[in-house]
Amino acid sequence: MIKAGIIGSTGYAGQELVRLLLQHREAEIVWYGSKSYVGKQYSEVFSNMFELVDQKCMEDDMDALADAVDVIFTATPQGLCASIVNDEVLGKTKIIDLSADFRIKDVSVYEAWYGIRHAGPQYIQEAVYGLCELNRESIKGARIIANPGCYPTCSILSIYPLAKAGLIDMGTLIIDAKSGTSGAGRSAKLGNLYCEVNENIKAYGVTTHRHTPEIEEQLSYAAGEPVCLNFTPHLVPMNRGILVTAYASLRRPVSYEEVKKLYDDCYGKEYFVRVLPQNVCPETRWVEGSNFVDVGFQIDERTNRVIMMGAMDNLVKGAAGQAVQNMNLLFGLPEKTGLELVPMFP
Amino acid sequence: MIKAGIIGSTGYAGQELVRLLLQHREAEIVWYGSKSYVGKQYSEVFSNMFELVDQKCMEDDMDALADAVDVIFTATPQGLCASIVNDEVLGKTKIIDLSADFRIKDVSVYEAWYGIRHAGPQYIQEAVYGLCELNRESIKGARIIANPGCYPTCSILSIYPLAKAGLIDMGTLIIDAKSGTSGAGRSAKLGNLYCEVNENIKAYGVTTHRHTPEIEEQLSYAAGEPVCLNFTPHLVPMNRGILVTAYASLRRPVSYEEVKKLYDDCYGKEYFVRVLPQNVCPETRWVEGSNFVDVGFQIDERTNRVIMMGAMDNLVKGAAGQAVQNMNLLFGLPEKTGLELVPMFP
Amino acid sequence: MIKAGIIGSTGYAGQELVRLLLQHREAEIVWYGSKSYVGKQYSEVFSNMFELVDQKCMEDDMDALADAVDVIFTATPQGLCASIVNDEVLGKTKIIDLSADFRIKDVSVYEAWYGIRHAGPQYIQEAVYGLCELNRESIKGARIIANPGCYPTCSILSIYPLAKAGLIDMGTLIIDAKSGTSGAGRSAKLGNLYCEVNENIKAYGVTTHRHTPEIEEQLSYAAGEPVCLNFTPHLVPMNRGILVTAYASLRRPVSYEEVKKLYDDCYGKEYFVRVLPQNVCPETRWVEGSNFVDVGFQIDERTNRVIMMGAMDNLVKGAAGQAVQNMNLLFGLPEKTGLELVPMFP
Amino acid sequence: MIKAGIIGSTGYAGQELVRLLLQHREAEIVWYGSKSYVGKQYSEVFSNMFELVDQKCMEDDMDALADAVDVIFTATPQGLCASIVNDEVLGKTKIIDLSADFRIKDVSVYEAWYGIRHAGPQYIQEAVYGLCELNRESIKGARIIANPGCYPTCSILSIYPLAKAGLIDMGTLIIDAKSGTSGAGRSAKLGNLYCEVNENIKAYGVTTHRHTPEIEEQLSYAAGEPVCLNFTPHLVPMNRGILVTAYASLRRPVSYEEVKKLYDDCYGKEYFVRVLPQNVCPETRWVEGSNFVDVGFQIDERTNRVIMMGAMDNLVKGAAGQAVQNMNLLFGLPEKTGLELVPMFP
Repeated sequence: MIKAGIIGSTGYAGQELVRLLLQHREAEIVWYGSKSYVGKQYSEVFSNMFELVDQKCMEDDMDALADAVDVIFTATPQGLCASIVNDEVLGKTKIIDLSADFRIKDVSVYEAWYGIRHAGPQYIQEAVYGLCELNRESIKGARIIANPGCYPTCSILSIYPLAKAGLIDMGTLIIDAKSGTSGAGRSAKLGNLYCEVNENIKAYGVTTHRHTPEIEEQLSYAAGEPVCLNFTPHLVPMNRGILVTAYASLRRPVSYEEVKKLYDDCYGKEYFVRVLPQNVCPETRWVEGSNFVDVGFQIDERTNRVIMMGAMDNLVKGAAGQAVQNMNLLFGLPEKTGLELVPMFP
Repeated sequence: MIKAGIIGSTGYAGQELVRLLLQHREAEIVWYGSKSYVGKQYSEVFSNMFELVDQKCMEDDMDALADAVDVIFTATPQGLCASIVNDEVLGKTKIIDLSADFRIKDVSVYEAWYGIRHAGPQYIQEAVYGLCELNRESIKGARIIANPGCYPTCSILSIYPLAKAGLIDMGTLIIDAKSGTSGAGRSAKLGNLYCEVNENIKAYGVTTHRHTPEIEEQLSYAAGEPVCLNFTPHLVPMNRGILVTAYASLRRPVSYEEVKKLYDDCYGKEYFVRVLPQNVCPETRWVEGSNFVDVGFQIDERTNRVIMMGAMDNLVKGAAGQAVQNMNLLFGLPEKTGLELVPMFP
Repeated sequence: MIKAGIIGSTGYAGQELVRLLLQHREAEIVWYGSKSYVGKQYSEVFSNMFELVDQKCMEDDMDALADAVDVIFTATPQGLCASIVNDEVLGKTKIIDLSADFRIKDVSVYEAWYGIRHAGPQYIQEAVYGLCELNRESIKGARIIANPGCYPTCSILSIYPLAKAGLIDMGTLIIDAKSGTSGAGRSAKLGNLYCEVNENIKAYGVTTHRHTPEIEEQLSYAAGEPVCLNFTPHLVPMNRGILVTAYASLRRPVSYEEVKKLYDDCYGKEYFVRVLPQNVCPETRWVEGSNFVDVGFQIDERTNRVIMMGAMDNLVKGAAGQAVQNMNLLFGLPEKTGLELVPMFP
Repeated sequence: MIKAGIIGSTGYAGQELVRLLLQHREAEIVWYGSKSYVGKQYSEVFSNMFELVDQKCMEDDMDALADAVDVIFTATPQGLCASIVNDEVLGKTKIIDLSADFRIKDVSVYEAWYGIRHAGPQYIQEAVYGLCELNRESIKGARIIANPGCYPTCSILSIYPLAKAGLIDMGTLIIDAKSGTSGAGRSAKLGNLYCEVNENIKAYGVTTHRHTPEIEEQLSYAAGEPVCLNFTPHLVPMNRGILVTAYASLRRPVSYEEVKKLYDDCYGKEYFVRVLPQNVCPETRWVEGSNFVDVGFQIDERTNRVIMMGAMDNLVKGAAGQAVQNMNLLFGLPEKTGLELVPMFP
């Protein structure tokens, strides 16, 4: 039985991790860390856990945690994990960091986009980018997993096969993404109030969203060339779900079958990536509550472009589910353990 | 491994049954019945099932099903199950009927409220009302389970302890209930369109809703006297969830502790009924996707009334989850098998 | 042209008042008061007002306002208006207070339910309860209008005709109310976040909501006897709208026609109260954005009760619209001026 | 007083036209046409109109209407208007067609994208594309107005200034659009049910949506060159609103000020187009219920692209409001008459 600790268990991603680990037969949570609710019953913070979780919230104390657990999940704001991780901790336990601290290899890029100094740059190189479908083998031996961002997970998996195959002109790539509101976190901000979000759609972080360099870096590995793209997120009045609509010019005319084969070759054996049939577009409702990413595409002969689409639950495959998938890989468990969740509809 | 067949698997309740049974380690679905989609891939009707269900929709043919399965779930409109069940079927298989056909013992009451003639009245007496917490032992040996209605499940469980204890004046009982829209079914009706339901709340079926006599009958067993009450359902702009707010005059002054003890005595050992702490009101968000019913109450000394409240997922404990719970009882499995679902929030 | 000032113009009710007054041909807003946004462009706080309002937010300074305007609207938390009103202000201007400060005639009841000491009890008696349909004549000559609460407006208008006629047993009266989320205000609280409210319904303030004594007082005037009732509000995932479902025992058997006539006699000449046809239930969507209250009822012969229902936009008839209606009365304008708004659907 | 008739008054756009015309002091509706509800009280179809509209639904009979009214609005599916318009009708009355029949000048393009034969091609050339801000003068003298589509209105107005100025490479133009659900109409289809739309976002009509050639044609006039672009609409769980996010490569480096001036030069005098301040993104909530289009842009130096954005209420500026604006122009009224609606928030 894997002993797990969560730093930041009282945010939406942290709570989703609790939901998944409670249903995971090989793991148990022994530490519910929190910044704001120390000493309070966890089930008072999240009443869905009433009679399911008996523990109280504890300090976000990584050193103490390292002695108590086999794996630490950090579901915290940027900068925290990098500032508290150290050699002693890494000697005792694994770290799966759900923040952005170890996702970007070039520390100057991280510091420019995030606007903070990186407090643990010495660990950046060894950290493995935990997109399981792409980095499965490296993940298994890592000490630090940089759990991918929600938008990057969905964007990269939607585009990867065509970037890898050199079929699209990476200079023309545009990603228009839409997310449910749980992605904005559980802090009490005016902009996240029900009446501000409901009956509204807006773009935000236009040209400046921090997930941009993460997507660029990973797609540049796939394409074998530097990638510079537009990424525009939008806030949608729903709880969960991310939809990515990506546009790129084709380098040459292609048939549906050829493109389909590229996706199938990449994902045919991947349980969590579902390549949809022809003319079926991904929708967030079909993956809600599950670790699936549904991907599809449409070729436009008129404009010589391909539209690549992906849908995913931002809290599962985009955060907690992928973190558990990484944990399974780290501890030699079947990758699907605890993650065979049928999407819940409606 | 229990072989299960579903008549009416392409409605919301039927599909939820599929979701639950796919995650149930002792059951497998061998028949996906449907009226409207015969011959179509089930996963084309519900794309969340893509790559999870490989079967096609089949006829709603109970006789053929009886040869193929150990248990038949009927998730169909009123009247169908009663019209197709017969001795031969019952000799071969168990029936869990999610419709109202066998819930009401007095056939004239059924016919008056439902406005149709009952086609199988000879099976009414033997059918067991499948509210597991109340009728556990009788369920185990039944051939036909009348799976309770969504509103009745939540209403009865919220009120039962005080009705049973004789603490409330049953003549003063008023139930004001609120339901998410999945309860209205998946048929393409104007009133169920997004723009008609969204940003709206309304009462419907005022004084005439068909769940009224079902609630009255069950509570009359608990109270040991005939019960005649007001039940008013409301349609709420959300997918899932039922909330019951019930009002009754107290027969004598009572303390919080006394009432709490009555609830605890009834439900202390029940996994699926959670009695909330003092001053905590049930909310549908805390039970979504799970088989839990959360109950609570508030005493009003000013008016000498008690307000009894319950929250539940109408598709799980109010339909498919309770059906699986009944199946577990019928087949001697631990009652929680396949139902230890942590509520999904947000 | 009436010069109007608003104290608390940056809450949801205050902003709705701005929307209505901008479309009112006999009024102009000369003071946009705010506690949190002093010095900021009003249209930066509410971008719907971009290019429509050019002013900046100013202090909530009632004394300065009194010199500048003909009428002051206070759309502020309880206690503020009572603490800043004074004889000099009342000598210069009219006050329409959207808070509860002057709604309840018995100061001890106010202090008990609101938990604060009343800072201006000497003005309570002269203040007129601004439910225009009931107190039209007294409103015209008042200096202070106590603009009714949202729940009370809808509850009282739904029940008034039968209370007045002595047709219902007031001791059996139960009000189950449902409100959209704008009623909770625009402060950044965890409980009002999108993901906390969406896909959820809950009761709150059970037995303790502050609108209870306000409803009781007004209905006691109608019934000519003290009234003690249960009022239970619920939070609904929608922006606007209040629905009231009220239950009472009939004092004697009545026909539909008799009850209908009572409603028609009360409201036949009232533009803003629409008595719905038989078997039509009020729905919040049909009044959204307008100053209408739709009322209806259903008699239940089985239980000898009548169910009285009302629907209203909480920000219009429940707050800003009624305030404008009061202003029209105060200044001798036709009561509908600026309020002939067709409900917006969907 | 302009006498107006509506063919198709019982859809969402038709009903919105009723809402606007009821509040228009120079127009009255004398004919409520409907296909499905002939003989029924209009206020029974839309209860918001209770006590406001006393008429019954009448046949969609254009010839009879032509004798009775000064202007006919057709808010009907594609093909109908073209099949019933004729010289006699046009000799007696004006037509404002909210369908696509007369929007596209090249009949073969219309027939290819809409998949039907055009039944009145002889009127295509004289029909004026009713985007008031661009074609104001030609509208005034027209007999047939082709009221623009919802997506085209928002797309064209967002992009027009830069297309006109030759600042963007039209071959790189990509429009990613998002719409509320009222755009899908009021027909009872499975895909429009509450539980299918709620908590979901999806793209639809990818590469094939019929508004594509309409946008291309109008932008080609602006740019002075043929335009071929990608237009991808998405369905958002909200009632009203369209958001457009458009991407194009810049032909040369530009400053914020230069681009801002182009927008201001185009729209500085336009009441209904609001050019937002720097770094403010359009949001649909700020225009709901009004005839405004809010536009903004962001320059991305990294990718040498400009992101152009627009937000609008699809039922007002995207349908009924623009139709009234056209009516005002046709009849020599101030363009804003009946349209000075303050956006309703929340």
